[in-house]
Amino acid sequence: MAAAKKATTKPKTTEKDVRTLRKIEQLAQSAVRTVEKKENPALSIRMRALSNVSFNEKKRIIELGQKTQSREFFNTSMARKFMQTFLIARGCKTLIDEGKTVSIRQMFYMTKHTLQGSSENTFEDQSESDPIIEDLEVGIDALREELHLFANKRGLVVGSLVVNDAGDEIDLTRMGRGGWGIPSICEDDQLRFVRNKAEFILCVEKQAVWHRLNEDRFWEKHKCILMTTEGQAARGSRRLLQRMATELKLPIYVLVDNDPWGLYIYSVLKQGSINLAYESMRMAVPGVRFLGMSSFDYKKFTLPKAVEIKLSKEDISRAEQMKAYPWFKDKKWQREIQELLKNGFKMEVDALLTKSISFITEEYIPKKLRDKDFLQ
Amino acid sequence: MAAAKKATTKPKTTEKDVRTLRKIEQLAQSAVRTVEKKENPALSIRMRALSNVSFNEKKRIIELGQKTQSREFFNTSMARKFMQTFLIARGCKTLIDEGKTVSIRQMFYMTKHTLQGSSENTFEDQSESDPIIEDLEVGIDALREELHLFANKRGLVVGSLVVNDAGDEIDLTRMGRGGWGIPSICEDDQLRFVRNKAEFILCVEKQAVWHRLNEDRFWEKHKCILMTTEGQAARGSRRLLQRMATELKLPIYVLVDNDPWGLYIYSVLKQGSINLAYESMRMAVPGVRFLGMSSFDYKKFTLPKAVEIKLSKEDISRAEQMKAYPWFKDKKWQREIQELLKNGFKMEVDALLTKSISFITEEYIPKKLRDKDFLQ
Repeated sequence: MAAAKKATTKPKTTEKDVRTLRKIEQLAQSAVRTVEKKENPALSIRMRALSNVSFNEKKRIIELGQKTQSREFFNTSMARKFMQTFLIARGCKTLIDEGKTVSIRQMFYMTKHTLQGSSENTFEDQSESDPIIEDLEVGIDALREELHLFANKRGLVVGSLVVNDAGDEIDLTRMGRGGWGIPSICEDDQLRFVRNKAEFILCVEKQAVWHRLNEDRFWEKHKCILMTTEGQAARGSRRLLQRMATELKLPIYVLVDNDPWGLYIYSVLKQGSINLAYESMRMAVPGVRFLGMSSFDYKKFTLPKAVEIKLSKEDISRAEQMKAYPWFKDKKWQREIQELLKNGFKMEVDALLTKSISFITEEYIPKKLRDKDFLQ
Repeated sequence: MAAAKKATTKPKTTEKDVRTLRKIEQLAQSAVRTVEKKENPALSIRMRALSNVSFNEKKRIIELGQKTQSREFFNTSMARKFMQTFLIARGCKTLIDEGKTVSIRQMFYMTKHTLQGSSENTFEDQSESDPIIEDLEVGIDALREELHLFANKRGLVVGSLVVNDAGDEIDLTRMGRGGWGIPSICEDDQLRFVRNKAEFILCVEKQAVWHRLNEDRFWEKHKCILMTTEGQAARGSRRLLQRMATELKLPIYVLVDNDPWGLYIYSVLKQGSINLAYESMRMAVPGVRFLGMSSFDYKKFTLPKAVEIKLSKEDISRAEQMKAYPWFKDKKWQREIQELLKNGFKMEVDALLTKSISFITEEYIPKKLRDKDFLQ
């Protein structure tokens, strides 16, 4: 293995960084100008509320609308938040200047202090700083990744792809059983795709299923990229999927448990979430395909009674809710969700091991792919 | 990057596998012989109860004692468990024969079925199969890893070490920002240390702290291996640490939050846990050193009031409990825990960012190492 020498200098400020810095500076200058005119400085921020969220039928993603709210300095109910927004903005500017990133918890500590001559803290706890970060993202139109903030990372990947991350060339066919940890921030200034031989991406919800598939070297036989989100997908995993879909132009198949939670995980990957509607354009992957587990798989693969887990009351009401979502209104989705309710039970992908240890690898997924048996 | 061709044949049965198979076969043969003698077949299993757990002062680990209990087939309260033990044993034999591994959830599905001519299931849910797996481990003296069962994996590693895992040579200096995912099973038939240039191991509890240190390339400057357990250490992380300690003979420094939970994470790494006392000899690393965060760090590093998080009632009673543990009876540990109680607050490692973004990397850890300021 050629251990090429690696540069250890600080990452340079990228073009994207320069753009983000300019946005932060504009925010500050605008406030200063208003003060100089002896007016009340204010921020205009798009409302992050259900009433300002809608499903864009054409783009097939959940989007934030254009309704804004104003945040004024000379307003007792807003002054604190106004001050906090500028503290966070200053923190992000420092991060970009120094070419470093921190977690949103760490940003809370970076900006928390006791105001001089008082016993008042700038932030009491993280539940105060997190929404301010979201305000800033929406307010200056920069994702938190561009503000050099990272969310906890989750997710692993292996397969027929070579990437370059932070200067290291990483061959994802040679990751052993452990896999490469998907970074929190998957933007193109640090992570690039070097060589791809994969023909599709298989993204599984459960780590243990990924482990079985990796051990059976599914990705090698089927020339694919094998990823696990390890539950609900973290931001890094979503952004990586989106970039692979657009830059590598690969189809993506998603394999989740047959339950409302699995449907929800798929749904967030596909069209984004209501809570983070602002980020859909950078996170959602409208092209992802639902490979399973489908409620119809029970009969299709003659699974034994042992796989059944009775639906709980919450499962049933959650499934009913799903049926009403505009992005599931298509007839084939209505049938799928209706079958789940009709079955009266849910199933885990792991349950396919009742057939045999490698049934998932050798029969279930290959058959689904061969038959083009997926929903979209 | 030389993409050496990799063998894709199934992993061969190793010597360790042969030994484990023999143990399973002996278990079965012994039962058959008893039946042939028209006697009541029984298993003798060491008791997994607090009354059979103790701290071995010499080895400095928590151990399971020698008290056993007998499990008989002709005993209405034991017959079901007797049958289940043999089902799991058969499942593990299949796994070893086929050179595959599954999660304990997947093993539940592999062995769950409805008994012919009845409506009774072999297992109702996983809470029935998990203890049987532990029984089998203790009963035939084989860790679940040897039985080809994996726990959910958690933990990431980078640094000055090259490993070979399942035939892939992996240079941990070239893992970008993502890191290598620590496998669930870190035994020497699959994972080997190829070349080591590290002088010590730094193991941090929090993923975000690991991320900061990796971004600052701490492991490069200080020639070390940088690991995160991502909270309480999973079996794979514990076993990897133990093997690095014994095979690479490297000192290990542990950095956890300054709270009772952090102390507990450290304590489990060091001497094992009461629940899994049986596994201490293969998991515990009595040599690990507690680098921090210490309750004395507040004054030592003149941290601001902003880092304080008031101790809850549970924190206080948990700390009192810790003080009473035999492995914390040393005077220096009593002082440490007493100071936590005296402070009346806990602190997170992340809180060091109140000083500056790279304070952890450039000042806190280097000073601690230089001053040999750690507990053991």
